[in-house]
Amino acid sequence: MPTLSEAGQALLLAKADDLRARYAAFCDRKLALDMTRGKPATDQLDLANAMLTCVDADAVRAAEGPDARNYGGVDGLPAVKALMADYLGVRAEQVVIGGNASLTLMHDCLVRALTHGVPGGAGPWFGQPVKWICPAPGYDRHFKILAHFGVEMITVDMGPDGPDMDAVEALVAKDAHIKGMWLVPRYSNPTGATCSDAVVQRLVRMPTAASDFRIFADDAYAEHHLVDSPTPRTNLLAAAEAAGTADRVLLFGSTSKISFAGAGICAFAGSAANVTWLTGHLSLQTIGPDKLNQLRHLVFFKDAAGIRAHMAKHAALLRPKFDTVLDCLEREISGIAEWTRPEGGYFISVDTPDGCAARTVALAARAGVKLTPAGATFPHDHDPNDRNIRLSPSLPPPAELAVAAELFAVCVQLAALERLERGRSPE
Amino acid sequence: MPTLSEAGQALLLAKADDLRARYAAFCDRKLALDMTRGKPATDQLDLANAMLTCVDADAVRAAEGPDARNYGGVDGLPAVKALMADYLGVRAEQVVIGGNASLTLMHDCLVRALTHGVPGGAGPWFGQPVKWICPAPGYDRHFKILAHFGVEMITVDMGPDGPDMDAVEALVAKDAHIKGMWLVPRYSNPTGATCSDAVVQRLVRMPTAASDFRIFADDAYAEHHLVDSPTPRTNLLAAAEAAGTADRVLLFGSTSKISFAGAGICAFAGSAANVTWLTGHLSLQTIGPDKLNQLRHLVFFKDAAGIRAHMAKHAALLRPKFDTVLDCLEREISGIAEWTRPEGGYFISVDTPDGCAARTVALAARAGVKLTPAGATFPHDHDPNDRNIRLSPSLPPPAELAVAAELFAVCVQLAALERLERGRSPE
Repeated sequence: MPTLSEAGQALLLAKADDLRARYAAFCDRKLALDMTRGKPATDQLDLANAMLTCVDADAVRAAEGPDARNYGGVDGLPAVKALMADYLGVRAEQVVIGGNASLTLMHDCLVRALTHGVPGGAGPWFGQPVKWICPAPGYDRHFKILAHFGVEMITVDMGPDGPDMDAVEALVAKDAHIKGMWLVPRYSNPTGATCSDAVVQRLVRMPTAASDFRIFADDAYAEHHLVDSPTPRTNLLAAAEAAGTADRVLLFGSTSKISFAGAGICAFAGSAANVTWLTGHLSLQTIGPDKLNQLRHLVFFKDAAGIRAHMAKHAALLRPKFDTVLDCLEREISGIAEWTRPEGGYFISVDTPDGCAARTVALAARAGVKLTPAGATFPHDHDPNDRNIRLSPSLPPPAELAVAAELFAVCVQLAALERLERGRSPE
Repeated sequence: MPTLSEAGQALLLAKADDLRARYAAFCDRKLALDMTRGKPATDQLDLANAMLTCVDADAVRAAEGPDARNYGGVDGLPAVKALMADYLGVRAEQVVIGGNASLTLMHDCLVRALTHGVPGGAGPWFGQPVKWICPAPGYDRHFKILAHFGVEMITVDMGPDGPDMDAVEALVAKDAHIKGMWLVPRYSNPTGATCSDAVVQRLVRMPTAASDFRIFADDAYAEHHLVDSPTPRTNLLAAAEAAGTADRVLLFGSTSKISFAGAGICAFAGSAANVTWLTGHLSLQTIGPDKLNQLRHLVFFKDAAGIRAHMAKHAALLRPKFDTVLDCLEREISGIAEWTRPEGGYFISVDTPDGCAARTVALAARAGVKLTPAGATFPHDHDPNDRNIRLSPSLPPPAELAVAAELFAVCVQLAALERLERGRSPE
């Protein structure tokens, strides 16, 4: 929220004493709560406990194809490629299965582009300036990878339908050093936005000055709905194929927030050229990913319908937590802050009045509630408006979550009040 | 074997007709056998089948530390670090646990050195010529990683006590572009050599022109004995610490040939500076490796004594296979070729008369037995003497292995005979 209305200002000033008293009371409770990361809670992990033991010696022998215990299969078990293809809305031959973290696949794909280049390009990206479009608010780990490799980040606004495409199109059309962009096409981290069909079509059809431009599409929340009838979405890779730009899209997904956060499987999907490129590089780096864990996923889920049915169980656990936070925000800070009401994903994105995010997080920390650091949702941890805060409702137990949400709402108001009282309205 | 003796030549010529008849008979059998890779056989994998189901929901709850199903733990579960430290002969704080492939750790450590440099150096290795010492015969995948990143490979001889240290010392002393070397310190792939204490001491004490010289020590066969009382060995990292060159040694190990070849866990061990360096990079690439699989290894093996007891079971299965091949070689090609009699590891390294290795492999392939390609044990797949062949006795069932070994021995003789008959003695 850029500015605080006069009504909002009056409201805050009227309840200043009350806010301070409530904050002091929270501090007295010696809380130790954590809302920093999008971690599944124990009851969510328990949903997949049968996966722990579903592959025994008999299941290994019964499985089609090579012995899942032995070396080999750099691109994954064929049946698991089919499973993840169905899940991601692509074809099995477009899929490569990785280890337990799609972050690794994404990181390594950038490294390979830097050291060797990508199909359609003129060789390694190293040795030239490399720039990258970063829709923000976005995922902190995406930005940190770019910073680590010295890639220049160009921020564009992330709106409710996806990135600001006027800005994206203008940038990529004129600068051949812009080699790619991050994108979370569904239930974006942290805003929950899903790219509209119009945005998807513009992404795959826009002219790019770089012949080897890549969209790193982190489809981390493909089936992570919080509502029963989510807004349909357009598949990015299929749209790129239809537009004749299939090489542009690298799609990444994982079961981290489906089976076990630390022990899922991940998948890459791309064009034939990109699959050949990736498997060629992978064959230097590994003899193959863990096929036993692939087999566990296959036996447990059977097919993409099994994954979707499982995700409904997650939603049943997550929805009340999101409602707890959203109801609290509605009750406490309407007219003072703005926030998203996501149809899926793991986060609620809150915009405080400008200049109040860092102070809000500091106040919450002092009272024992850890939040994602202010600024983390922007490149270089710098939110130019000091406005955005990512809330992660998934991990805390419901009772603790209600306390943490209320404290957060008090801290937002207190931060805004402090600015008011310092004689200047929050900008 | 550089040259064939006159006695050997006479022997071959005397049984020329017999060799051709035997080879033709093999061809008629339409064999389809594979001795290309060091893959464990099914009965070896079965030894660890209890690991498949040893971690259930109760075991997850009972385990110390964070929930192994969730995100986190970039360096591994503390108890698993202790387990792998004991296995590798180092301290737990020197260990970082990785995913299912130490090859990935090694590959990625080289990439990190290229893109960012290593402690003690002057920044990224990219942008300058980088050279690497490659003891040969050696492991083909080691060499392929270097070739992939354009690192210049310098071959030195791998002898029975380790690399030719006169050559290594002379090279590293004068050329600051030589940034590292490969080493398999125990039961080297393919010769089975274990570095003697004298070699280890020279490796850790030799002056290097590069301040950031690294020994990538692939300790893949640390406890993979074939004999009851193996020759003791000196721990490379401990020796480097004693010599004040701890940063020089990066030690890599895995349980790939202990538990499951495709679903083991791997470990890195190094100095405090190198551990900090590695975990810093890892934290960009992953939220953490698969801790459930770490827990499986902990529950199944309990401690390093458990690993050693398990390795004795592997030895009981592997020893007869090695004996089958060694007995056959002894019977068939004494005086015609030379080979190693390893105390451990996965390979027998055979030297045919010079100029006969590629032809031997081709003859075997035509008769239905796949061998590791000739040359694979040297940088750029080029054996300057066309002499070395790596035999992998582990995978084939015993009966098939006997057939494959005999055919191999016939092919060696036939290749040597062909050279003799072309009017020139095999060089």
